Amino acid sequence: MSDPLRLGIAGLGTVGAGVVKILEKRADLIAARAGRPVKVTAVSARTQGKDRGFDLSAYAWEDDPVRLAARDDVDLVVELVGGDNGPAKDTIEAAIAHGKDIVTANKAMLALHGQELAEAAEAKGLCLRFEAAVAGGIPCVKALTESLAGNRIERVMGVMNGTCNYILTRMEDAGLPYDTVFAEASALGYLEADPTLDVGGIDAGHKLALLASIAYGTRVDFEAVRLEGIERVSIADIRHASDMGFKVKLLGVARMTGRGLEARMSPCLVPAASPLGQLSGATNMVVLEGDAVGRIVLRGAGAGEGPTASAVLSDVIEIARGTRLSTFGQPAASLVKGTRAQSGSPAPYYLRMELQDKPGALAKVAACLGDAGISIDRMRQYDHADASIAPVILVTHKAGRPDLDAAIERMTETGVLTGEPVALRIEELDD
Amino acid sequence: MSDPLRLGIAGLGTVGAGVVKILEKRADLIAARAGRPVKVTAVSARTQGKDRGFDLSAYAWEDDPVRLAARDDVDLVVELVGGDNGPAKDTIEAAIAHGKDIVTANKAMLALHGQELAEAAEAKGLCLRFEAAVAGGIPCVKALTESLAGNRIERVMGVMNGTCNYILTRMEDAGLPYDTVFAEASALGYLEADPTLDVGGIDAGHKLALLASIAYGTRVDFEAVRLEGIERVSIADIRHASDMGFKVKLLGVARMTGRGLEARMSPCLVPAASPLGQLSGATNMVVLEGDAVGRIVLRGAGAGEGPTASAVLSDVIEIARGTRLSTFGQPAASLVKGTRAQSGSPAPYYLRMELQDKPGALAKVAACLGDAGISIDRMRQYDHADASIAPVILVTHKAGRPDLDAAIERMTETGVLTGEPVALRIEELDD
Repeated sequence: MSDPLRLGIAGLGTVGAGVVKILEKRADLIAARAGRPVKVTAVSARTQGKDRGFDLSAYAWEDDPVRLAARDDVDLVVELVGGDNGPAKDTIEAAIAHGKDIVTANKAMLALHGQELAEAAEAKGLCLRFEAAVAGGIPCVKALTESLAGNRIERVMGVMNGTCNYILTRMEDAGLPYDTVFAEASALGYLEADPTLDVGGIDAGHKLALLASIAYGTRVDFEAVRLEGIERVSIADIRHASDMGFKVKLLGVARMTGRGLEARMSPCLVPAASPLGQLSGATNMVVLEGDAVGRIVLRGAGAGEGPTASAVLSDVIEIARGTRLSTFGQPAASLVKGTRAQSGSPAPYYLRMELQDKPGALAKVAACLGDAGISIDRMRQYDHADASIAPVILVTHKAGRPDLDAAIERMTETGVLTGEPVALRIEELDD
Repeated sequence: MSDPLRLGIAGLGTVGAGVVKILEKRADLIAARAGRPVKVTAVSARTQGKDRGFDLSAYAWEDDPVRLAARDDVDLVVELVGGDNGPAKDTIEAAIAHGKDIVTANKAMLALHGQELAEAAEAKGLCLRFEAAVAGGIPCVKALTESLAGNRIERVMGVMNGTCNYILTRMEDAGLPYDTVFAEASALGYLEADPTLDVGGIDAGHKLALLASIAYGTRVDFEAVRLEGIERVSIADIRHASDMGFKVKLLGVARMTGRGLEARMSPCLVPAASPLGQLSGATNMVVLEGDAVGRIVLRGAGAGEGPTASAVLSDVIEIARGTRLSTFGQPAASLVKGTRAQSGSPAPYYLRMELQDKPGALAKVAACLGDAGISIDRMRQYDHADASIAPVILVTHKAGRPDLDAAIERMTETGVLTGEPVALRIEELDD
């Protein structure tokens, strides 16, 4: 058996500690599969004292992850420091400078700096791998990079923020409003320190940007992802959607179109009977559509100690086996600058608005849509306790988002609406 | 860019032609991803004349795939000849003898001869890869071999024969009996020339044997798979199961237990609301459970030109990139001989029987179960047109299959049954 692969683990939070514990518990199994032992030689974290469920004294300690990355007895640096800059980035840069391969779970940093870091690593013949950064234990990076490598990718979709999916399904199941469930999720510790990372779609948007780069051979471009959070999704929207056979999901979609790369992370309606529609709770799902393979659905835990550590180890064992893959499936320097599509492809939209109960109000709203060239597929007016306001739900035929936004602006100007309409895209999933 | 990887394609049926067409159509994309061109230099098939949708004259022709495998201008042999012996095996052996890597979609041959072929290939430093052999376009071989390499595998499950799943869901949706749907499937060309390969669970059993080998580091042992086909599943079973919140699936399950490797391919009841229960039509699903990652669900097309060709290309591009993996995730020579579990782990069972409408009949049946130490969870007696026969459905608490079989034998001996009871395992899927 060959020499051991020696790891330096930077960051001993839940995931880092999980990686160390699995490597201790499954040393023989992993050595058999990797063809060589995989062992941790050094670790680094903010505080040394804490009980992490394993004997820290078995490993060399570094206060500074940058020094960890420079150690002679480390072949591969596992970066689990977190943060889109600062020590995490310094650690990866140090690893590259010292000729170490890198495995990271840091989606924010890769979405913002992945292009330059991958280029720097690859220029030195190093691997920078990130399975754990996207959808936790779901092997979507590997599936897209390797399993679908013979496909032109038609569409990448994903429910990749477990907290948002938890909130949306909990709202539906318990009949609770967004604010209440948000507070619950916060109390349960499900939300990031800055909750807009979750509910604003930013975290999931980071992940989508990374998958899009692999799928389309384009430079990582987080700015290209149109973000819309779930904050404005109401229990009413969820119920109306359900009545019509849909579920509301924070859905990421990336497609290459004639107008450029379309990438968006937004609350969408998907058919209730589809795998995406059936996904409840914090579970994640990635859907990959290739011109040859058709639609592949991958489902699993998107976060947590075990699933994320499993994904980290997938990359570590890949490198231990001698597999050398480019970060984004082809050399980072060969990725092209993708044109950003100025708007999403046309789709049916769900519209919810509150009409003032005046004669002709509905006609005015309908006229705004008609003037914008948007036709109406279905319309429902619901019972309402407040006699002066009528909740109206519309489903349009396929419409472009700019046309829809223009129509909504005109509707607002008519003065017959109370509040702002909610518009949710219906993502089409033909079978 | 490096030298091209030169392929010899043995077998130009649907899948082989699909591989050639994709390599022609996506040459640039694949070269960018593989880091080098991938091109077909020679092909072989039974008849040369046929129109296969591409220009055959672009490639050297061999009548004999064994001669194809010996060609100097072939680096990698793609074996799509089919059959668990004969020319397919000769082709792979020739490829090994001439130092060529091999990619195959041939589950039957690998299930029966994979151990010796992998050992022979690996002894010469060659790759023998088979993503396309299991569940078509679903990247389950890669997921299990690589993505879950840091996990002790708890259970591997799969619906891996699309024809059987088509038959079972069609029976339910159309309310048609097995024989009628079987005839339909046959007319549609969905069945193998020998249909017991499909409905007898043999084809899916081959696939399970291969996954079990990767999961548990055991030598390929198709004989260890307990096979039970779907021929005895009636529309009544499907309806009763549905009434109780289950679906009937031809489900493969492999687990390593204290009693050895348990591997079975049999019709089982699974919760209707689970991803497995929701799987309808010819779609396949593989469920992998690891101690760290939890449950990963992979869903996609299990057959067909595009999906299978996509899987073949996944292996081809892997090799073009320079990745060298063992056939079963660790050197074949290091795989251990697994003990075969003498019986499956205890589970609840669904039992359907026809009782003669005599006083005391039900008591006698219940006593047989009681004597075998099996307790009854639920019992239903259904309306029946024929007054002399009462259809009875029982769901037992967890029971061992040998105990259940003994109880069924005793029941039959009581003389109160008409025909033989049907016993279907309820596979537990806690969430």
